[in-house]
Amino acid sequence: MTAEILCVGTEILLGDIVNTNAQYIAKELALIGIDVYRQSVVGDNPDRLRESLALALSRADTVLMTGGLGPTYDDLTKETTAAYFGRKMEMHEPSLRQIEEFYARTGRTMTPNNRKQAMMPERAVVFPNSCGTAPGLAIEGEGEQAGKTAIMMPGPPREMKAMMRESVLPYLMKQSDHTLVSRNVHIFGLGESLVEDKLHDLMEELRNPTLAPYAKDGEVLLRVTASVRDKAEADALIDPVVEKIRAVIGDAIYGIDVDNLQNALVQTLRRKHLTVATAESCTAGLVASRIAEIPGASEVFGYGVTTYANEAKMKLLGVAEETLRAHGAVSAETACEMASGVRALAGADIGVSVTGIAGPDGGSEEKPVGLVYVGVATEEGVHAVKLNLARNYRTGMRQYIRYVASSNALFQALRSAERGAPAAQVKNEE
Amino acid sequence: MTAEILCVGTEILLGDIVNTNAQYIAKELALIGIDVYRQSVVGDNPDRLRESLALALSRADTVLMTGGLGPTYDDLTKETTAAYFGRKMEMHEPSLRQIEEFYARTGRTMTPNNRKQAMMPERAVVFPNSCGTAPGLAIEGEGEQAGKTAIMMPGPPREMKAMMRESVLPYLMKQSDHTLVSRNVHIFGLGESLVEDKLHDLMEELRNPTLAPYAKDGEVLLRVTASVRDKAEADALIDPVVEKIRAVIGDAIYGIDVDNLQNALVQTLRRKHLTVATAESCTAGLVASRIAEIPGASEVFGYGVTTYANEAKMKLLGVAEETLRAHGAVSAETACEMASGVRALAGADIGVSVTGIAGPDGGSEEKPVGLVYVGVATEEGVHAVKLNLARNYRTGMRQYIRYVASSNALFQALRSAERGAPAAQVKNEE
Repeated sequence: MTAEILCVGTEILLGDIVNTNAQYIAKELALIGIDVYRQSVVGDNPDRLRESLALALSRADTVLMTGGLGPTYDDLTKETTAAYFGRKMEMHEPSLRQIEEFYARTGRTMTPNNRKQAMMPERAVVFPNSCGTAPGLAIEGEGEQAGKTAIMMPGPPREMKAMMRESVLPYLMKQSDHTLVSRNVHIFGLGESLVEDKLHDLMEELRNPTLAPYAKDGEVLLRVTASVRDKAEADALIDPVVEKIRAVIGDAIYGIDVDNLQNALVQTLRRKHLTVATAESCTAGLVASRIAEIPGASEVFGYGVTTYANEAKMKLLGVAEETLRAHGAVSAETACEMASGVRALAGADIGVSVTGIAGPDGGSEEKPVGLVYVGVATEEGVHAVKLNLARNYRTGMRQYIRYVASSNALFQALRSAERGAPAAQVKNEE
Repeated sequence: MTAEILCVGTEILLGDIVNTNAQYIAKELALIGIDVYRQSVVGDNPDRLRESLALALSRADTVLMTGGLGPTYDDLTKETTAAYFGRKMEMHEPSLRQIEEFYARTGRTMTPNNRKQAMMPERAVVFPNSCGTAPGLAIEGEGEQAGKTAIMMPGPPREMKAMMRESVLPYLMKQSDHTLVSRNVHIFGLGESLVEDKLHDLMEELRNPTLAPYAKDGEVLLRVTASVRDKAEADALIDPVVEKIRAVIGDAIYGIDVDNLQNALVQTLRRKHLTVATAESCTAGLVASRIAEIPGASEVFGYGVTTYANEAKMKLLGVAEETLRAHGAVSAETACEMASGVRALAGADIGVSVTGIAGPDGGSEEKPVGLVYVGVATEEGVHAVKLNLARNYRTGMRQYIRYVASSNALFQALRSAERGAPAAQVKNEE
């Protein structure tokens, strides 16, 4: 089966929102082995929408659409698509009841135009909306249009994602016969081009599974994807490739299918019954916040401090005034004292610290923007890692430096956690 | 002039990355008054790329493409587009020298396939890449293709954005005669549908400027956009509309063209010579980190603590054990003591705190997931705001609750800062 993705919304054409829906749908379709050769976006204009729909259905079996199912006058996807398939609109009673219940449950007042959302083309397959009011639907072509299907989902990403997972994927999977299975190898601290150089021959030579690198700030994700009938076949194809990657990349791999650094860290800490505490200057809570993204983080993380001010570094973490005077706030010495200080303050197994110059101002020849120290304290001692995270960017460098600095802190804490043994435990209510 | 956006990359079709390039380009084109009726995405496949290019150029004057300009074998955008316009490829010496300099400056080794990036179609307009190696280009059609232009930019967003700003927009603006000017009215704490209800008649009635609402988690952005010849005309058209919006929406407007809550907060604190300190439980550094996103934040923000553990709340913030026992960690009383505690600890003008239940676990009937208290302490006293941020989401609710909780903390701090007078100042090196 081939599919196209057609997103409807003038706000996307104007660049007011990023089209994350296309990415989510594309990823989910790839996972169930449906090929997507094109994505497109069209505004809330019935003529262009109809033209785009016709074009997409001339090239693909199925078109997945998002947006334009809302209650307002410019929401036209359902009506335009119904007209294309020659279907009349009629009131869909189960949807109407669901919308009424949604309003009753959330204590909001239903307006007459919300009834429009329950109008459906005749003989449509209706998908309930578990996160909002507009139901989704599929129209399956008849007669000359047989074999062509248009699927419509609401535009708000949360509603779309829930509907995709709960209704649309099960609907599509009934019609597909093979599956793509992927494994993600997470690499930190090696550039994409270096990873590609090292794995170039393997990437060129592999057909099933395939091997593809994706770079994000400071990280490379290698995705190994096999087209298979079942899990056993997937393992047999993918496992040897992962071993080959390990042999080449080694220590820079921080996990397989672990989502991200913060998840790898929290899971490792939980497994080993270890705790971490954070002391942050230039990242200012970003390390703590990334740890707290992970459900259950409170079991392994009790204390974090943001010490932007030197006074805060002394008062909260016991950094010596002499250290700050002799070496400055951005130094290996200060990073070490911050890490040791927060470890002692929290009674944690691992103390991790970040101090650096995120810019755009505050750099000097000796200490340029991008200079960052990450400190790690454990019961075995304390050390600091020096990083130069400056890049040749005109904008966004501050956010890049802060983000990659926080990634380095998570990575260093993870390395310590992997080596460490359990000790004190943190306990709290949230 | 009409334009289409055509993004090239199998990684987009597979959903491995979000197509933020299309959004950025669309927004920039809207601002200079170029109409975009369609966006599309095609993979690294020369046949489908050529077909998509031909289709786009049949409908629009200009096609802006991203991706496929890199050094590897599957980067085919330049070659495919050159062939479509009947142009030969030749070595572009200035680009080659620039690539050589880039490698020399960044201390990396240049590989032979990097030379491919300096190959250009004959008679192309070449755009330098200030953030990477692949130059961009424009091919202007000749003969039967006169009036049709293909613009190609690299895929990495940083490189594309810099090139768009530095070269492509100036190139396009030479060909456009009017300008769109927008003003953004930022609203916090009112739902999009409520804002739309209140402004429905105004939105319907306006033609120039237009008025459009965009909802983000917890916020609504109202964009007023006028098509004008100069700034004076823009002000004359837009100012009265902004006043009408103020009359209807009132206090929920937290700023005009201020980017976001954290920027509004930092600018207000700087203007008033006030400082803020943060004490966070469920948001765990997210408030601090959002403040620190803003350059110059260190002038107004010296201390933040993440007190996930109750012990940390007592030890760092002086929250009374009795308060935690009697009311629990998630209570107005604890929020107030956290805010007062961090204000005292930091010697700041404003102390802001967040404590709540982000889930997915940890909720009870009395204190459900989504219950959040934001505390604010100033020299005038301390108070707490109770929020219920639970939504009907199956996934992502933890991140939603944490994010909107942090927005509420920023909003409350901003309200205090707007009322407040200057007092103590924070000083530090970063």
